[in-house]
Amino acid sequence: MDKLLDRAFNGDPRAIGRLISLVEADAPNAKEIMRQVYPRTGKAHVIGITGSPGAGKSTFVDRLIAQFKADGKKVGVIAIDPSSPFTGGAILGDRLRMQSHALEEGVFIRSMGSRGHLGGVSRATHEGALILDACGFDVVLIETVGVGQSEVDIIKIADTVCLVLVPGMGDDVQIMKAGIMEIADLFVVNKADREGADKVAADVQVMLKMLGQKEWIPPVCLVSSLKNLGADEAKDIMKRHGEYLLNSEEGKRRRYNQLEMEVENILRGDIAVIAEKAWNGRKESGVLDDLAARRTDPYTLAGNIMSEIVK
Amino acid sequence: MDKLLDRAFNGDPRAIGRLISLVEADAPNAKEIMRQVYPRTGKAHVIGITGSPGAGKSTFVDRLIAQFKADGKKVGVIAIDPSSPFTGGAILGDRLRMQSHALEEGVFIRSMGSRGHLGGVSRATHEGALILDACGFDVVLIETVGVGQSEVDIIKIADTVCLVLVPGMGDDVQIMKAGIMEIADLFVVNKADREGADKVAADVQVMLKMLGQKEWIPPVCLVSSLKNLGADEAKDIMKRHGEYLLNSEEGKRRRYNQLEMEVENILRGDIAVIAEKAWNGRKESGVLDDLAARRTDPYTLAGNIMSEIVK
Repeated sequence: MDKLLDRAFNGDPRAIGRLISLVEADAPNAKEIMRQVYPRTGKAHVIGITGSPGAGKSTFVDRLIAQFKADGKKVGVIAIDPSSPFTGGAILGDRLRMQSHALEEGVFIRSMGSRGHLGGVSRATHEGALILDACGFDVVLIETVGVGQSEVDIIKIADTVCLVLVPGMGDDVQIMKAGIMEIADLFVVNKADREGADKVAADVQVMLKMLGQKEWIPPVCLVSSLKNLGADEAKDIMKRHGEYLLNSEEGKRRRYNQLEMEVENILRGDIAVIAEKAWNGRKESGVLDDLAARRTDPYTLAGNIMSEIVK
Repeated sequence: MDKLLDRAFNGDPRAIGRLISLVEADAPNAKEIMRQVYPRTGKAHVIGITGSPGAGKSTFVDRLIAQFKADGKKVGVIAIDPSSPFTGGAILGDRLRMQSHALEEGVFIRSMGSRGHLGGVSRATHEGALILDACGFDVVLIETVGVGQSEVDIIKIADTVCLVLVPGMGDDVQIMKAGIMEIADLFVVNKADREGADKVAADVQVMLKMLGQKEWIPPVCLVSSLKNLGADEAKDIMKRHGEYLLNSEEGKRRRYNQLEMEVENILRGDIAVIAEKAWNGRKESGVLDDLAARRTDPYTLAGNIMSEIVK
């Protein structure tokens, strides 16, 4: 395993991919891998790209890669696939995404399923980002699925959160995303060649005013991947935000929050494993029949299991 | 507390509301309440109503209440509010929803915030449904927020899952919901007075064929709340599905799965509380500074905490 780690830390893409796979699958040595990875982390600028399905996130990420590369940065990308939680089938694979950069030097693109339980998704995503950080990528882009909790969870992982909006998606859906509006450090109005882009940008400005003044005022940036416009500005804003975080109380607070959440996530996963094991032992003794017949209740049962496993 | 429980079990709406509030807030006596509630549960037909924001779920639920009431059923409703995870502000309150039935005899409507952590949302929702069940409601309708994980989680609580679709919402968004399609026992194409309703119904049929044959073939039902059409048919299908579950292997499997998930949820919550306490104790000792400086790593730290609390 030390060899694998050495190769990954030296930038070998196959070794990096293998590490991520081991951690994603929660292999027996996953924790040991992360223990070795961790001391090398904290250097990359982790940027989350979120927004509704259909907002053009993948194409925007593709353009961003080119921008960061032009700045001489090594760029790692984790793209969360919108796989069904039931079939586990990924709709899009990394082969279909961001093709133009997938084989370039200094670029690493990885897709991950959004399937998972017990908060497993954000943990795997986070550990993937930590691995890329440790392996020398200057910028790590995380493209979320763009539905539900994964969008809000990105704040737990990313230094900079970019919300991609698009004209003509319907206000009801976008307003539902109020929780995401509040965590965005930068708004990109994508497909700005379309009618209504200025209106979306204006709406965002209004909502930002309603949210109140912050030290960092999230800029709104018009981007057209079609016309190849605006990605450079978006990249510059991201860079500026990264620098702001390095030298502000806000940045320190955010880093500490993330550290807290990291520990809590790991604890929660470890706890779930123990709870599951204890519960599996009980299930065999016909306790489900007792529950179904209301001869016992889940609260009493859980209490008994708890007193067995907890000091 | 016994008095409160008695009053609730006798159908006093204020007592029922108070019980739900205590459990939702995880009051010190919440577990004891649930222990007393549990033996009385297992009689209600719990129906989850899910679908995108804007699909008209609230209005449809309003019509369903009338249908079930006409059948002489007592109907409890839990409507999950799309509150922001950050401000905690609920966009809609129960006062604005389903107004036409809110004050009727035999109808109880309760809204719950979607805010929460550690799977707290689904636990509170589930416990609310159990309380309504124990208090004699024949039918419990749960209206989800319609975004993300909450939609898939409804299968853990509901006997019957109804997915509400609507013409003109854009295919990309609806197809993203593939994971929900697979858990629906019934599809309602709402706002069927609009153009495109037949197309949505046909698309659903195609997707159902792709998912393969099941014993229960989910019907697709056209509903127009505007023209007051189709809610009776939807109600009949739900009733039929409830009867199917009572007398099928599928039903037994589902009930047992739900029981398992109940116990696991309680366990996970209990352990999380203990872990949080242990972790809070550590945080005070400056361990976050050590993490930030990479003098230690979250994996080692979590491991130490776990060995403190677990036998």
